Order: sequence, then C-alpha cells, then structure tokens
Amino acid sequence: MIGVAKAVELLSRREVLAEELVRQCLARIEEREPVVQAWEVVDAEGALREARRIDGLRDRPFLCGVPVGVKDLIDTKELPTGYGSPIHRGHRPVEDAACVRALKQGGAVVLGKTVTTEFAVYSPGKTRNPRDPSRTPGGSSSGSAAAVADGMVPFALGTQTAASVIRPASFCGVIGWKPAYGTVSLAGVHPLAPSLDTLGFFVRELDDVPPVLRALTGIELAPSPLRSPVFALCRTEAWDRADPSTRSAVEEAAARLARMGAEIRDLELSPALVDAQMAIMGAEAAVSLRRYAEADLSQKLREFLETGRAVSSERLRAAHELAARERLELQRHLAQVDAILTPAASGEAPQGLSATGDPLFSRIWTLLGAPCCSLPVLQGPTGLPLGLQLIARDDQHLFDAAVFAARG
Amino acid sequence: MIGVAKAVELLSRREVLAEELVRQCLARIEEREPVVQAWEVVDAEGALREARRIDGLRDRPFLCGVPVGVKDLIDTKELPTGYGSPIHRGHRPVEDAACVRALKQGGAVVLGKTVTTEFAVYSPGKTRNPRDPSRTPGGSSSGSAAAVADGMVPFALGTQTAASVIRPASFCGVIGWKPAYGTVSLAGVHPLAPSLDTLGFFVRELDDVPPVLRALTGIELAPSPLRSPVFALCRTEAWDRADPSTRSAVEEAAARLARMGAEIRDLELSPALVDAQMAIMGAEAAVSLRRYAEADLSQKLREFLETGRAVSSERLRAAHELAARERLELQRHLAQVDAILTPAASGEAPQGLSATGDPLFSRIWTLLGAPCCSLPVLQGPTGLPLGLQLIARDDQHLFDAAVFAARG
Repeated sequence: MIGVAKAVELLSRREVLAEELVRQCLARIEEREPVVQAWEVVDAEGALREARRIDGLRDRPFLCGVPVGVKDLIDTKELPTGYGSPIHRGHRPVEDAACVRALKQGGAVVLGKTVTTEFAVYSPGKTRNPRDPSRTPGGSSSGSAAAVADGMVPFALGTQTAASVIRPASFCGVIGWKPAYGTVSLAGVHPLAPSLDTLGFFVRELDDVPPVLRALTGIELAPSPLRSPVFALCRTEAWDRADPSTRSAVEEAAARLARMGAEIRDLELSPALVDAQMAIMGAEAAVSLRRYAEADLSQKLREFLETGRAVSSERLRAAHELAARERLELQRHLAQVDAILTPAASGEAPQGLSATGDPLFSRIWTLLGAPCCSLPVLQGPTGLPLGLQLIARDDQHLFDAAVFAARG
Repeated sequence: MIGVAKAVELLSRREVLAEELVRQCLARIEEREPVVQAWEVVDAEGALREARRIDGLRDRPFLCGVPVGVKDLIDTKELPTGYGSPIHRGHRPVEDAACVRALKQGGAVVLGKTVTTEFAVYSPGKTRNPRDPSRTPGGSSSGSAAAVADGMVPFALGTQTAASVIRPASFCGVIGWKPAYGTVSLAGVHPLAPSLDTLGFFVRELDDVPPVLRALTGIELAPSPLRSPVFALCRTEAWDRADPSTRSAVEEAAARLARMGAEIRDLELSPALVDAQMAIMGAEAAVSLRRYAEADLSQKLREFLETGRAVSSERLRAAHELAARERLELQRHLAQVDAILTPAASGEAPQGLSATGDPLFSRIWTLLGAPCCSLPVLQGPTGLPLGLQLIARDDQHLFDAAVFAARG
C-alpha cells in the first residue's frame, strides 16, 4: 500500500485511479481485519462511489481521492459515529466534523470509521496491534494507528488529550503527528478535556505529512534540510519510569544524531507537569461526560470520572498556573533549538488487550500544547517498534527536525 | 496618607514608625468608614501589635511595617475570611494564603479584610465609591480599591477573573496592577475560575508598584525611562459598547502621548475573545462553586452559575482553542510595542450600589493572561475618574510604559 505523497503523485498524473486505491484498501482490510479489528465500519460502497466521482472530475482537489480512516470519536454525517460507547451505537451525526469537511474538500475519500477507546479514555476497543496481535495497539486512537500500520489505509485521523496519537503511533510503528493545540478545529469531535483535546493524524512516511497537514490546516510546509541541527534531549520527570531499554534506545539515538553533526543539549523542565495534566484532564472530563448515566459507562471510566470529580479547585488552579508558566518557558526553549527529543512511550506495546498502555510520556507535551510527532525509528527489546518523540516550535521546524532524525 | 514607596523610605530611616502609620490608617478609617464601608473587619489591635513588633526589630524586612488591606476572598489565619458570602461568615482559615505570607515576610502589616462581592462574582457587598458614595466602587475587589482610593491604607490586594482589579481601580481613581496570569500563587484564595483567576493589587502612585511587586513576586523592577515608546491603541471588539466620552478620552490620551514623542499604532485582535472569556469563566465557576447549596447563594449568583452550567463542552473547547492561539498572537504583538492602550472600563462608575458595573473591557486581557494596569489619568463626563488600561509583555515593560503614559 503506497503512502499519501506517492498516492497524490500517481493520482495527479492519473497513473492510478482513486477507485483502485480504495479497492486495494478494501482488499487489505478483508485480508487482515479479522486479526487487527481496526474498524468500526468500512464504507466500501460509499468510498468507491466517491472515488469514482473524484476520478471523473476534470479539476480534482489536490488529494485526488486518497482514502482516509476517521477515528470514531469524530462526527461523520454519512457514517454512524459511536464515540467508543454503546450509548451512541448507531448514532448518526447531522454534520461532518470540521476536520472531515476539510479533508473532503481537499479530496480525501472517507473509507470508514476506526476504533476508539470509550469516549477516548482508557477502556479499550477491540483492536489488536498488527505487529503482534497479542498486544495492545495503544489508545485512544487505536484503530487509526493500527489501520495505517497494517497498510489498510494511507492515513487516518486521531485525537490526543493525554497520549492518544503519540502512544499508538509508537506501539504500532507509524508516524503520529500532533500539530499545536488549537491548530485544527475540533468542532464535531466528542469533547473529553477541552483545554487539552488536540487533533492529529497517522501516516507511514514523513513525505506524507505535508499533504495531510495542508488539507487539515492550510499550512504548507517548505522543507529545508538541516545540516547541523540543535536538539535538546529532555528526559522529563517521567524518565525513571521508562523501561531501561527505552532509556538507552533514546540516548543512543541522540548519540547517533550527534555523530551525524547535530548538537545535543540537555533540557530539564519544571517537575509536576504530569500531575498538572492529570488534574486538568480529570476535572474537565468529569464535566464533559457528566451527561451520561453511570450505569452506561464502563467500570474503568466510572473510576476515572470519580478521580476527576475529586480534583479540588485549588489543585486545578495550581495546574493551570503551572501550565501557563511552562508554556512560555517552553516557547523560550524551543526558540533556541530545532527540536526536543524524548521517548514517545515508556516501552514497547505491552502484552494483552485489556489496557492500552501508559500515556505518561505524552502528558507533558499535550499540556504544553506544542507540535510533536513520534517517529518509528527505535526498537524495543523484543524487536517491536518504539517511537522517538520530537517537539518543536511549529510544524515546519518539527518536520525539518524529523527528516534529520529519521536518517539517524 | 503617604504611599508605599514614601512610607518605606521614611520607615527605613526611622523618620516615622509603623505604629504611627497604622494609627493614621485607623484614624482615616474611623472618619470615613461610615460612608465608604470598605472593610469587613479592621484588626486595630493586631495591626498595632505587629507594627510595634516590626518597629522594635533591628533588621526589619524591607517593607518595614507598611499596612495593607487584604480582599476578603483571601485566607488570613488571624482574621475571619468570609469570601463575601454568609455561608462562611466568621470562618477562620487555618493558614494564611501564600500571598499574605509573602507580604508578611516582606514586612507588611495586615490592617484588615476588605469587602468582596459574593465569591468574587457579581453580587455586591456594602462598599461605596469614595469619590461619590451614590455610585458603585466596582467589583469584585470593591473594598480594596475604595480603601486605597480613600487614603485608608497605602495598598491592598485584589483578584481578577474578569475585571475585578482593573474596573474598581478605574471607578475609584487608583492604580490597579495585575501581573501576568500565574505570577503570584493563589494558594489560599477562594477559586472562581482556575484558568483565569489572577492576583493583583491597588496603589495610589506608580512609585508604589515596585516595592509591592517585589514583596509579592520577588520581581525587582529596574525603571528605565522611555523616550519614544511605541504604543498600540487596541479598541477591541467591545469598543462600540464604551461610552462615547470614554472612546474620545482614550483617543485623546493616545494623541497626547503621540505629541510627547510616542509612536501610536493600531492593533486589532481576533473577535470572540469576550465570549471565550465568558464561556470559560462560567463553566469553571459552575464547578468551583458547585459545593454550595443553591439556597445559600444570591439570586444573581444562582443565575450566573446556571449560565455557566449551560456552557457546552464544544463552546468551551472553542474558547480554549481561541485563547491558546491568541495568547501566542498577543506575545508576538507585545514583542513589537512597549504597551497596548485600551479603556479600563466602558465609562465612569455607574450610579447605584446594586451592581458593580460591566467587566467588558478587561475580559479579553484576563483571558490572554498578560500583565496589565489601570492608570487614573482620564476623566469621565461628570469629572469622575476613568482608567487608561495598559498591557505589556512583562511587568518591567508595563511599568516603564505606565511611567511615560502617566505624564501624558
């Protein structure tokens, strides 16, 4: 299965038809879905119809019919949207979410809805990790990461409130990209924690990032290769909780980049950022989801909401104050380096499907709102993928730094 | 009644004793309190005792016993703290709030607690505007602004979630100073909207700002007079709702500053910031105050909380997204000018004591979190004071710009 950039190139020259791409996706899904279970619904007929319509246009929007998977937390008017909860099974939103509208206008074909955890919190859906089906794909954007990793679709949408793009990207071995907080409108996406929720996406190649980012945000990246970038290695307050193999993999990656001509600095952030993210996420989620009857929620979600309700206003305020200070501080740090390097997750995808892994290594960066990505350039002790996370001041710097880091 | 800077000067040379200053405050309060009603409680005995203790020290902390009024939203362990609500009448916190501790360590003497509106929202306390007792002093930091304006105390603490420092400063004709969001810890201050609540203070002279700021934050201002500052006149989306006389007073002030050598630019911000502030304030207040029984709250507060509960998660998220984007945007604007000029309030203090006036002209700046101040340099149509509001990238720039603007 080709990636977004290659697909756009071939489609625009009419060397391949969007209909053919959709058929390739459908064939791969048919073959692999029984194992991976990435999809809530696949709209074979609708996608083929839309692909043929785009193929028939004289002036096609620039994505020319590239198929996309949409996390089932995101409203689609032609497909049911269940938000990962039985409460909404079969729910038909009246409108597409803003991001879906933007992708359609850009010429993407919605192939179907991918599995999310329950309301994008911790209770897993059915999806398995395509690299090892006995392991979790990570969450909450489980189906999107797994579908892209398994070659079922060239790209897919996710959302992140704690680590829901970066962690599944790391576990499944794909690129997860989260633009800055607020870059992509979340109108039509089920809210979890409004001051943290951020839209992102999954692709397999870095070349695929610019066309997707352009369709979603209008940002046009102008790649400018870096010769001797400056990276800050940020171990974060969570470092000691990463697997030893993860710590050495990230440090070795930094050493490789140094040998390639990069300057590597150390960066320490204020502690307590993880707790601040947890306080804000919990408190806001308790408000966002309070409309639902307890009985309709999983035990895991009920416990999470109970914890959120227990966050005191004082703790919440201290969290917001710390976040505000550290956002400015991070802007200052990022003005002086090309990107920050840090683990994308504490280790490989854990065994089992009853949990989606620890969001620890992304909480800080979601809270601070800067653009970040996970690159599938490291390996865990059993050979499974492990992401190297980069954070930068804007998508352009992030992209240039990622291109350099991906060569390491 | 002398100001903070003059008091520190005389006290440090022992040309006046802290005990004398406290007695002067008490005399002024005795004379004027029946009209102004700025105080919930005045601790004559405790303040005299503490003043004498400081007077007796060989090495005094640098404020040397300057008296301060503390908004009754702020915890004091030696004085009851009622948060403007009958629910807490006589409540004795077990600890001083962090800001009170900092002031005491800096050598301030707590003279008493000043009147706040109910939980710092809209339902007024008893305080009257010392310039015209038939008018509101503004809120929610009503007593602090009135007490400083009336010469009852050299400085006083306030808090701002919408406009609760800047508006009463404007109405009472004193300087209101609000450092950046998060600068001063709010530990021990009753929460209203944790992602907006900000501590500030009132003084009568610009020279009084540096010692208070130093005691509260550790920030030491190093005044550097500006010769040809750059100001951005920002009319904001609320401009048409200001009194015509306010609009012309602010424009004339800008013209005066231009004649003094300043460059005046125009600045337009994204619209919808007022609504975003209202959404966040309402939604968070509904959570912060939900522990109280409806029956114990005023009708006005119940209605406000009802509006807050009705804020949808979608509106809240759009508000947070807009705020995050515009904070960065404002940082960029503020990097290019010395300060922004804008009205502190829509007009003079309104007639009557049943409401505290419209917070409209401060909502945007509280939301965006930058340091701001109100300077009592304008007049309304009946000769009552009107504030010129300045916003800058940090307290140092704000101070230098304020010194220039105060000469205009």
